[in-house]
Amino acid sequence: MSGTANIGVVGLAVMGSNLARNLASREGNTVAIYNRSHDKTETLVAEHPEAKFVPAYSYDEFAASLQKPRTAIIMVKAGGATDAVINALVEAFEPGDIIVDGGNALFTDTIRREKAVRETGINFVGAGISGGEEGALLGPSIMPGGSDESWVTLGPILKSIAAVAEGEPCVTHIGHDGAGHFVKMVHNGIEYADMQLIAEAYDLIRRATGKSPAEIADVFAEWNKGELESYLIEITAEVLRQMDADTGKPLVDVILDQAGAKGTGAWTVQTALNLGVPVSGIAEAVFARSLSSHPEQRSVSGELPGPSEGLSVEDTDEFIEQVRLALYASKIVAYSQGFDEIRAGAAEYNWTIDLGAVSKIWRGGCIIRAQFLNRIADAYAESPELSVLLTAPYFVDALGPAQAAWRHIVATAATAGIPAPAFASSLAYYDGLRADRLPAALVQGQRDFFGAHTYKRVDKEGTFHTLWSGDRSEVEAEDTH
Amino acid sequence: MSGTANIGVVGLAVMGSNLARNLASREGNTVAIYNRSHDKTETLVAEHPEAKFVPAYSYDEFAASLQKPRTAIIMVKAGGATDAVINALVEAFEPGDIIVDGGNALFTDTIRREKAVRETGINFVGAGISGGEEGALLGPSIMPGGSDESWVTLGPILKSIAAVAEGEPCVTHIGHDGAGHFVKMVHNGIEYADMQLIAEAYDLIRRATGKSPAEIADVFAEWNKGELESYLIEITAEVLRQMDADTGKPLVDVILDQAGAKGTGAWTVQTALNLGVPVSGIAEAVFARSLSSHPEQRSVSGELPGPSEGLSVEDTDEFIEQVRLALYASKIVAYSQGFDEIRAGAAEYNWTIDLGAVSKIWRGGCIIRAQFLNRIADAYAESPELSVLLTAPYFVDALGPAQAAWRHIVATAATAGIPAPAFASSLAYYDGLRADRLPAALVQGQRDFFGAHTYKRVDKEGTFHTLWSGDRSEVEAEDTH
Repeated sequence: MSGTANIGVVGLAVMGSNLARNLASREGNTVAIYNRSHDKTETLVAEHPEAKFVPAYSYDEFAASLQKPRTAIIMVKAGGATDAVINALVEAFEPGDIIVDGGNALFTDTIRREKAVRETGINFVGAGISGGEEGALLGPSIMPGGSDESWVTLGPILKSIAAVAEGEPCVTHIGHDGAGHFVKMVHNGIEYADMQLIAEAYDLIRRATGKSPAEIADVFAEWNKGELESYLIEITAEVLRQMDADTGKPLVDVILDQAGAKGTGAWTVQTALNLGVPVSGIAEAVFARSLSSHPEQRSVSGELPGPSEGLSVEDTDEFIEQVRLALYASKIVAYSQGFDEIRAGAAEYNWTIDLGAVSKIWRGGCIIRAQFLNRIADAYAESPELSVLLTAPYFVDALGPAQAAWRHIVATAATAGIPAPAFASSLAYYDGLRADRLPAALVQGQRDFFGAHTYKRVDKEGTFHTLWSGDRSEVEAEDTH
Repeated sequence: MSGTANIGVVGLAVMGSNLARNLASREGNTVAIYNRSHDKTETLVAEHPEAKFVPAYSYDEFAASLQKPRTAIIMVKAGGATDAVINALVEAFEPGDIIVDGGNALFTDTIRREKAVRETGINFVGAGISGGEEGALLGPSIMPGGSDESWVTLGPILKSIAAVAEGEPCVTHIGHDGAGHFVKMVHNGIEYADMQLIAEAYDLIRRATGKSPAEIADVFAEWNKGELESYLIEITAEVLRQMDADTGKPLVDVILDQAGAKGTGAWTVQTALNLGVPVSGIAEAVFARSLSSHPEQRSVSGELPGPSEGLSVEDTDEFIEQVRLALYASKIVAYSQGFDEIRAGAAEYNWTIDLGAVSKIWRGGCIIRAQFLNRIADAYAESPELSVLLTAPYFVDALGPAQAAWRHIVATAATAGIPAPAFASSLAYYDGLRADRLPAALVQGQRDFFGAHTYKRVDKEGTFHTLWSGDRSEVEAEDTH
């Protein structure tokens, strides 16, 4: 017996119910819904008669309400709650059916779950969904992994609800098993870097020019008309313009300056460390948040010596333009590092990921949506094997005129005692990439000295060791690199 | 029946055989040895008759050769090989006996193993051993975890072989279960940062002054007489002075500039991310190595635009002194971040770790041994609850006169296009710690805007949310920080 709904949603908290409403609003969809506590189901049905939901109050009833192949999206907390729902659905579903985890799972959990569920003949799809509550309701950016078979059924459903950017739905089949959650993780890592860079730009302008948050809101609004155009720049202007009703002060001055984090930024860095990919800009952003959230350390540090002279800027407009260029250049580095991680992850986990397609589905629905992503898509269209994104001609052309300003801003921050860890780190990465020779050769010499870790030579093949505690001659060695 | 040996060693590769020889050379020790392939055991016995080893060719024979409580140190590869030996020893040993893993295990593996072995009544001790092959033979720095009971027997044995610094053996009972391997991991992370900072100092001096490696060796030798005195500075001078016999060039110019890594640096950063501790200097050092080891990315990056003018320095001696001060200040930050991680790890895993004692046992035997560690011991002696090491009066006094030079060097590197990621990151961390207000408030505002993540206020208790898509009034909210 087959039901009437072509898609089901399990878990009706805000994200789940918004996604269910989004699905129901699109032509051709009939949406079955299930929630552990029945009152949420009843409320959603009552409040949204227009959605014509098919409510279910047991997993069996839920399964019976779905057309075959049954397709259900799980929107519950990552971790044990997700495992419990998967197990229940595996019991109720049949081979060929499709279970989608739309939560923020760690991609290695998704790989594990996909492998276990596949044994039953059921398809398991880990799908990253970005855009928050509003995106879930009106159109998110969706990053599904899973099998090709599952995409045949799931693709049209997800395309029906995704955000649309320049006529294209913001969803593509990223790759097998954990690929979708991996890409969503890196999306969030880039988001951390982007937000930190914007915060540093704001801080520098404020401290250097004395402009008020509302005046700086105007700067960001202006920037949003140019190559920095993006959702994050847009909302930065909104946040900076907001006044606090209680105190009459700018809201940003009333908000406690301790940034929270949900963990996906840390995952991005931890995974990059396993892959050997330098995502220093993302790491600095994550660390900047953790530094901010240790008030007990910051309170004892107020007496640390700083520069004797404050920062004074003669030409305010010129300084602001230099900050804009530094932000743009640093942003190019952050995205380049993020795409490098996706490239390395695909190689490690045997995913075939179209990096250009990834950049395109980020143009709408998600937090880092930006015009800029079209340039990334162009770069990969021109050169799909591009090893370092920022070496694409368009970005090289952008970095050329920007780099003098970028250097000036990093130097100014260092001199004036204004913390700009992500600006500084991005520039150091860029100069490291540019360098003909790096002092890594000295590091290799040190490692060979104290640990006989061996080294390679620039002028011949092989692995070598200097007999440092002997006669200091060089010998060929086994590679213990 | 009890044997004659008071200590046994399993695994007779270089580290294990050197440690066995070290043990045998100390009065009062009789050393049983076992290796999976018997020829290694036979060779060691034949080559070192003076050691009077008690060889064993089965685990039962090994157990029978040991006095009770039996005490054995495992020196085999981390991972599966270690688990196999532990299982064999658990079979052969009895409650009250002591199994020590002297390898480079990840501390969470040590916690797991300690818990499993404890069930049998046998003591399991994870002990970090630093100092490489030479340290193992002549006196390493040893960081044992495990139970208080095990320390009664093990302590005197380890004290007999440890390095000695200012009359004190470089070993102390770090804390329970995984505490020893945790502290060893952070030791290695600090080592990464220290080496990267030295490499940046060398690179800056070379590029700015045109001095040869041999001339810069003199600079490091001179630095080694002052507050930077340390093993790493000492061997840097040795490496820079070394000439390549083949080419007649400085060896450092012949070594391929791609730095290897064994993973403990990455572990340190990954663990810090879990603990919410900003170890940005260590992270930059790990990333600098990974950047260096991607030749395919560096080769395409040679055409990236750089500064139009090179770096020229008028007063060479002044510049070198500025680099020295920048190195010293950055090093203080790196150690402060590392000790912060140990403090946070102890809180998370319920270890009682004496941070001053940790700094003292690093004064000898290990790679980061340095005079400097006495200052850290002093700081914790004066203020055991010190939240941020660099806020101790001694370090504040050192940072005061150093910071102008530090800022100048970071600014110079940024302007001249010389990558100095660890210098720059350390300074940004320092300025972040110093800041009265951080732009983290803006980040919280952004997070509240796009994800309703809420924020706290500077002027009252509670958790708040602005209705950004509504009338923009502020409401009290559940804490979803």
